[in-house]
Amino acid sequence: MTETAPTGLSFGDRLSTVFATRGQLCVGIDPHAWLLTDWGLPDTAAGAEAFGRRVVEAAVGLAGIVKPQIGFYERFGSVGYAALERVLADARDAGLLVIADVKRGEIGTSMEAYGEAWLTPGSPLEVDAITVNPFLGVGSLDASLDLAVASGKGVFVLAATSNPEGKTIQTSLVTDGPRSGLSVARAILDEVTERNVAVTVAAAQPELGSIGVVLGATLDLATFGIDVSTPVTGPLPPVLAPGFGHQGAAIADLASIYGSFAAGVIVSESRSVLSAGPDRLSASIARRVTEIGAARG
Amino acid sequence: MTETAPTGLSFGDRLSTVFATRGQLCVGIDPHAWLLTDWGLPDTAAGAEAFGRRVVEAAVGLAGIVKPQIGFYERFGSVGYAALERVLADARDAGLLVIADVKRGEIGTSMEAYGEAWLTPGSPLEVDAITVNPFLGVGSLDASLDLAVASGKGVFVLAATSNPEGKTIQTSLVTDGPRSGLSVARAILDEVTERNVAVTVAAAQPELGSIGVVLGATLDLATFGIDVSTPVTGPLPPVLAPGFGHQGAAIADLASIYGSFAAGVIVSESRSVLSAGPDRLSASIARRVTEIGAARG
Repeated sequence: MTETAPTGLSFGDRLSTVFATRGQLCVGIDPHAWLLTDWGLPDTAAGAEAFGRRVVEAAVGLAGIVKPQIGFYERFGSVGYAALERVLADARDAGLLVIADVKRGEIGTSMEAYGEAWLTPGSPLEVDAITVNPFLGVGSLDASLDLAVASGKGVFVLAATSNPEGKTIQTSLVTDGPRSGLSVARAILDEVTERNVAVTVAAAQPELGSIGVVLGATLDLATFGIDVSTPVTGPLPPVLAPGFGHQGAAIADLASIYGSFAAGVIVSESRSVLSAGPDRLSASIARRVTEIGAARG
Repeated sequence: MTETAPTGLSFGDRLSTVFATRGQLCVGIDPHAWLLTDWGLPDTAAGAEAFGRRVVEAAVGLAGIVKPQIGFYERFGSVGYAALERVLADARDAGLLVIADVKRGEIGTSMEAYGEAWLTPGSPLEVDAITVNPFLGVGSLDASLDLAVASGKGVFVLAATSNPEGKTIQTSLVTDGPRSGLSVARAILDEVTERNVAVTVAAAQPELGSIGVVLGATLDLATFGIDVSTPVTGPLPPVLAPGFGHQGAAIADLASIYGSFAAGVIVSESRSVLSAGPDRLSASIARRVTEIGAARG
């Protein structure tokens, strides 16, 4: 178990430091069966552990953020979770920010239980941030958002996802409550922005908030009701951005895709980096960090 | 690990048998910290395991379905999952249908990984059905729906949830694709119905489908665009129904709340049953089964 001494820094503050020193790349840790085979590892919990620890080792000193996809560990049951715990400990001991891609979404005490699992200092599954799913309402997630902020942790709320099937729900129009007439994706983004403002009202205004969103890089965000040319009020919400690399979005287009959100974008790449294999992984990460840095000027 | 011999029966078929022999109650397994304390158990993985095994023991012979809320095990990390595996094994060995309340929602290979974890015969976390979250699109779940049906397993897709914060997204109006003009909840229900028909087109028509929905009992479903007076085409989708008991919906209103879906309703109760304590749990379950049976006539 890795204990985190309270630093007093928010997740947004820590992310700003990582951006300044290591850039905006987040390396996925996705031990697919076929990737394990390509890497010469067994398709077992031990194989997934070796894979994860190798990615962490390759990322240290080059990139600042890793994102394990938890399903690829959960498929092995509790032994997969034990393997995951060792990968998370390695990553956090090495000073990497860890975003667990768990997409949890619950109500009340069940959502609190997820916060206890992933966002509580000293928990065996402790990470720096998790992804969450707002289908039950952003308000249903408040317990975990509050817990995150209190512990210096972060949360990324799904808003507009990079897969084509996401559009139906995410572009639907809200008809109930104060955000009537907005798209679902836009209503979620506005709720997140509002919460970042509320959290920081009494403190010095940070550059980045601790509550972020997931906005896919493959999308025309305007069709999701999100106007990226409007300046953001309050702290910039960090944007976890899948869709670059294997899914087809180009790093050179980062500024035009995300506009006023670009400075908060975490470029999340998995397959495009991991398919380099264990020996060429460091070189692949270094090259990608350089490309993103160049695109950001 | 509990291996399931292929029976050739679908989840819907097995659910029909359970309804006929044990009724429509599903007992939640929610080891909250405060419930563990009330039960005289430690707030640890071992306490959550003892709690879960006690619920299973009390349910056997009285109710046919249990639903562990996985977050209450995940909060202990891998040792919590190991405890959960033993609870699941007990429940399945005793012939109970087990619905894991995990609300997973992912795309592509990540969703397949969750199917591998929960719906694959012989997996350490094997259950009979899981809950899934459609925010990324019902189509994004198809890999797990196909896997479920092929293995005789079930899936419950969130559609209209019992908490008040769910309304904003779930009543939004679809503007994209063939279900334009429908509410999000109704579009999900229609997609589920369509898939149950597609799955069973070549086989004898079952009474209940294997792909179900979550529709909260606390709701006026008409405000979610769902007309329960219309007869259902094809197999009846099973309805996992939270909201009875502690959340306030009355069993006597089951038929009026669910209309043409009532015969497929699984009455999911947790706190209202579990708060009876370990010694009075069996009596509490037996009374609730009787009440539901009386209400269903």
